[in-house]
Amino acid sequence: VKNTLLLPELRELVSLGRFEDLREFCTAEHPGVIAEFLSALDPEEVWVVLRTTPSAVRAEIFSHLDEEVQVEATEFIGRREMTDLVSHMSPDDRVDFLKRLPEEKAAAVLPALAQVEREDIRRLSSYPEGTAGAVMTSDYATLGPDLNVDQAIEKLRREAPDRETIYVAYVVDEKRQLLGLVSLRDLMVSRGSAMVRNIMKEEVVSVLASESREEGALKIQKYDLIALPVIDGDQALVGILTHDDAMDVMSDKFSEDMGRFMAIAGTSHERDYLRTSPWEHFRNRSGWIVALALLGLVSGYIIQAFEGVLLQFALLATFIPMLAGAGGNTGGQSATLVVRALATGELLPRNVLGVLWREFRVSLLLGGLLALLAFGRVLLFSRHGHLPPGFSPYVVGAAVAAALGFQVVTSTLLGALLPLAAARARFDPALVASPALASIVDITGLTIYFITVKIVLRL
Amino acid sequence: VKNTLLLPELRELVSLGRFEDLREFCTAEHPGVIAEFLSALDPEEVWVVLRTTPSAVRAEIFSHLDEEVQVEATEFIGRREMTDLVSHMSPDDRVDFLKRLPEEKAAAVLPALAQVEREDIRRLSSYPEGTAGAVMTSDYATLGPDLNVDQAIEKLRREAPDRETIYVAYVVDEKRQLLGLVSLRDLMVSRGSAMVRNIMKEEVVSVLASESREEGALKIQKYDLIALPVIDGDQALVGILTHDDAMDVMSDKFSEDMGRFMAIAGTSHERDYLRTSPWEHFRNRSGWIVALALLGLVSGYIIQAFEGVLLQFALLATFIPMLAGAGGNTGGQSATLVVRALATGELLPRNVLGVLWREFRVSLLLGGLLALLAFGRVLLFSRHGHLPPGFSPYVVGAAVAAALGFQVVTSTLLGALLPLAAARARFDPALVASPALASIVDITGLTIYFITVKIVLRL
Repeated sequence: VKNTLLLPELRELVSLGRFEDLREFCTAEHPGVIAEFLSALDPEEVWVVLRTTPSAVRAEIFSHLDEEVQVEATEFIGRREMTDLVSHMSPDDRVDFLKRLPEEKAAAVLPALAQVEREDIRRLSSYPEGTAGAVMTSDYATLGPDLNVDQAIEKLRREAPDRETIYVAYVVDEKRQLLGLVSLRDLMVSRGSAMVRNIMKEEVVSVLASESREEGALKIQKYDLIALPVIDGDQALVGILTHDDAMDVMSDKFSEDMGRFMAIAGTSHERDYLRTSPWEHFRNRSGWIVALALLGLVSGYIIQAFEGVLLQFALLATFIPMLAGAGGNTGGQSATLVVRALATGELLPRNVLGVLWREFRVSLLLGGLLALLAFGRVLLFSRHGHLPPGFSPYVVGAAVAAALGFQVVTSTLLGALLPLAAARARFDPALVASPALASIVDITGLTIYFITVKIVLRL
Repeated sequence: VKNTLLLPELRELVSLGRFEDLREFCTAEHPGVIAEFLSALDPEEVWVVLRTTPSAVRAEIFSHLDEEVQVEATEFIGRREMTDLVSHMSPDDRVDFLKRLPEEKAAAVLPALAQVEREDIRRLSSYPEGTAGAVMTSDYATLGPDLNVDQAIEKLRREAPDRETIYVAYVVDEKRQLLGLVSLRDLMVSRGSAMVRNIMKEEVVSVLASESREEGALKIQKYDLIALPVIDGDQALVGILTHDDAMDVMSDKFSEDMGRFMAIAGTSHERDYLRTSPWEHFRNRSGWIVALALLGLVSGYIIQAFEGVLLQFALLATFIPMLAGAGGNTGGQSATLVVRALATGELLPRNVLGVLWREFRVSLLLGGLLALLAFGRVLLFSRHGHLPPGFSPYVVGAAVAAALGFQVVTSTLLGALLPLAAARARFDPALVASPALASIVDITGLTIYFITVKIVLRL
């Protein structure tokens, strides 16, 4: 995100070389806010400004810059400065940054880092994108079970500058097996001589590094945690997810889900609307649009197959938009509710039958209401004598109403069923995009419609 | 949320009167987890179980029960028990609970509460639903500016049991004006004799109690906060929003937005899919469905108005689904992107022109691609001799392609424009539901289509 509010002032300070003022500016606000202001500058200017700040502040502001600005700015960062920058970043930011760099640049930085930092990078990079392991940080605080409270508080106080949080500390044995946790609050209200082992909470909610980051974020939300320990297959502690990571993960997830559900490709990294070029927008959107257009052709073929019916009774064409709309809308509603309830964990894929039964009852109500509406519309029409001779308005109305009601029931059930089926097959339910559903129920709906009217009206 | 996993075991313990075991069960896990298990019981049984637990635990588990279970359980709670329960709840939970109770029940509880608690309720209830003031808690920690670090830590340690968090403390003067904040971490790494005034951070991000709770949650996310101070119009501190509140607010917001955008009414309180009866689902969905069906009738009238064209050239009907689909899908995509970018604060309502220009270029690409596809389809058809005599396949193809391209451009621009217009008029952009947009572009699309083919084909 860019904020151009102070752009002229910053430009002036840079061109006048007023480094002292720039340094002061950079420390006057939250690094995230400073980063927004700096992102509006050219990458070269960004680095001129950041050079004025102490290493720790610089690394923090840099970590908050937009990804593109980070990468572009590296052109102007000397090798030594780069090492300094990278080694002051927090482990998770560092890994993200190095992943974004062209390979030769990243390779140039690695040897200069301390052994422990390289180890961190290796470990954090080894988890696939999208897992809890890939977003966790390794800057967590641990305590031994045999410390007493005073010693524990002293250890946390000493380590505070290097830890993402000291408000929860994990109690581990010599193999880093997770034995329990204590919060700083618990430590502060306990007697100084009490043993960590005796005040720690032994039931600890955790997530496997290989599980999805959404899984971790949902646990943080459910249990109101400040941080969630991440463990590997051997139950050893390898990192933590923090509440602020969880919030970002959740909003990325919702954004991605919504895009996917509305037939837009692209990951959360590309979701920055203004940053994405029209050509990239086109690429993210055109796949689905073409696929849906091809599905639309199928509906066309169905209409063509029943051309004879339409030529005989052209009025029937006027009900097609209402029919297609009702199917898409009711199916879209049930799909939305199911996708949403699956995302919050309220529904499980195995709830299929319960959901279908509930949706069936809802669809009967909706279908009945719309059928009434359609029936009324046909009667209204026939008053003006639009019907071909020989057809009773009641029979025509009944045919259209029956088709519409049947269409609503089918569409509602399909809308609920498809996301559940996707979830059962371990796909993201939101992959069943609502427009695709609308195109599918267009096809089923037109078939239902023409067959129903042919039978009822004996065409 | 209910968890029926332990239902038989719990039932048995209740019927055997094994209160000691029940008490142990209730304290063995996080209150949120216990609440899920208990929610599966009948309300009367729930209270039998909760009676076995200490007041503080009981109040916490109770606060995590589903809303309906809470209300139903009150039938079995004696007056004294009720007072004890309510006075052990945290202020925000207490207010939420009392709001849910029938008025006479709530009135019976109030007099028994301490003055300070009644004061809290009055203040917290005085902010309208949906504001930061209505979700904040008043259990925050404050410090005077003239304490030293040792005194400050001692004060926080003493108050810890009654505070929602002690990891940030707000520095206020005697009028509760917010002077700054210190984190417990800052306190722990400072010299014991340093003054709070000298180590506090003076630039404090805050939110007005009258601002929306989403505003507050976005700030917590943006600045990675553990808590956000809530101030009133006189800059006095009145409460805090915590990171876990923010997470709930954000996921409610996304849920609501998605529902609204997909034409489903109902607030986040009703978003519990399985808890909502079919009849309620029907009420939440039918309004939009009927409105959209009526809009669908307009499309029907347009088809009817051009009945002559269709009778002359029935093939044209087969392109209608593709045309309507393409409009709805491209419009839906641009609307989704705009709604999403407005929700994350990336776009502002005043960015209208920039967005339209960007969408215009994207729509030219998409429209061009689909026009090509339509042109190809007409040529393919004409090979099989489906065209009426006297019409060149190239001219027919050009007419259909031109109409489709024009439709895509209009729909994409409308999709971007309508949510921006809603936001400008200070409505929720997601109110411009995607199905409504689809119905609107059906109408514009059919009009464009018939006029274009009439002109190009001289029908």
